[in-house]
Amino acid sequence: MIKKVVIVANGAFPTNPFALEQLEKAEFIVCCDGAVNKLTGTSFVPDAIVGDLDSLHDELKIKYKDILHHFSDQETNDLTKAVNWCKDQLFTEVSIVGATGLRDDHMIGNVFLLPQYTRFIKVKMYTDHGVFTSISASQQYKSFKGQQVSIFATNPQIKITTSNLKYPLNNQCLSMLWQGTLNESLDDYFGLKISGGDLVVYQEY
Amino acid sequence: MIKKVVIVANGAFPTNPFALEQLEKAEFIVCCDGAVNKLTGTSFVPDAIVGDLDSLHDELKIKYKDILHHFSDQETNDLTKAVNWCKDQLFTEVSIVGATGLRDDHMIGNVFLLPQYTRFIKVKMYTDHGVFTSISASQQYKSFKGQQVSIFATNPQIKITTSNLKYPLNNQCLSMLWQGTLNESLDDYFGLKISGGDLVVYQEY
Repeated sequence: MIKKVVIVANGAFPTNPFALEQLEKAEFIVCCDGAVNKLTGTSFVPDAIVGDLDSLHDELKIKYKDILHHFSDQETNDLTKAVNWCKDQLFTEVSIVGATGLRDDHMIGNVFLLPQYTRFIKVKMYTDHGVFTSISASQQYKSFKGQQVSIFATNPQIKITTSNLKYPLNNQCLSMLWQGTLNESLDDYFGLKISGGDLVVYQEY
Repeated sequence: MIKKVVIVANGAFPTNPFALEQLEKAEFIVCCDGAVNKLTGTSFVPDAIVGDLDSLHDELKIKYKDILHHFSDQETNDLTKAVNWCKDQLFTEVSIVGATGLRDDHMIGNVFLLPQYTRFIKVKMYTDHGVFTSISASQQYKSFKGQQVSIFATNPQIKITTSNLKYPLNNQCLSMLWQGTLNESLDDYFGLKISGGDLVVYQEY
């Protein structure tokens, strides 16, 4: 059974319509810790708040006391705590919003956690400019002609074959992280086939 | 002889005082291609414009015809074209601003190009939230107690030893890119010693 959830991470609150649409149609909203401060003044209401709770304002701790889930583990960040909690609640598909836009190191960290999450849950990260996903085998992506696409290999040994991309790869490796950026879809879908690791994929809206 | 330059990349124009200060004290300003559009209406004037020039408005192409440097190579992005041009002009230190804030894939690509640039020029990338640098050996960083610090290993074999960081590493590897995020300086300096590759370092302002 498909069970969908939206996680609001603790970056900048989304402004892009595609990202906001995720919240608007959400059946269940999980807020990372301090992110709940950012829902104040919007029409969105958290169904659960997950994290170490150290960045949650005191009045909100009282208001939301029944939906707080405290995890103090220092080995994982708040986004990972939230994704793990969603897995435990048997959610099967997660859309992450608000994971970018403030601290650049958090943004990079969050993006490159996607492969780890993808091992146990279907996940998409919607930013104000595009969507990040992760794959470890083959996938065909819905796209459009001219869509800007970037792929990031999480290790230099990953062999990648593309179809319908402007700069094709044929069983080739990307020895550096920036080398798969600035590609472009040639049609209403493109394909990626990989072996030897995980790929993070970015599609501009 | 030290010869300093500031490169304005084609992301969001900086708003943070530390990033803007780089422009204010700049002796020479190089604009990546379309970034020059963003200088219009500011007090900053480009000394050189470098790139494939395909995103430069026509009236600016005429206005700046004497300082345009056209490179059409499709294997490098505009930021790399600008850094390479600075190297050829014998600049020795470059501050990059405006490399983040719009497309997330460009931001990641730009950040992980720093190790490549660092091989031939001293480089710092100032974002609206912090500063990125890259090292391949040992370095002591000026810091302050409580400064948020993240390190990104560009391959999982790099051995890292830290000093004065809250979560220390002792000749250890970071097998995944997110694992060195969310560290913190314990004093007015911290140290990093690495072997086996390049590290990208982020210090929050």
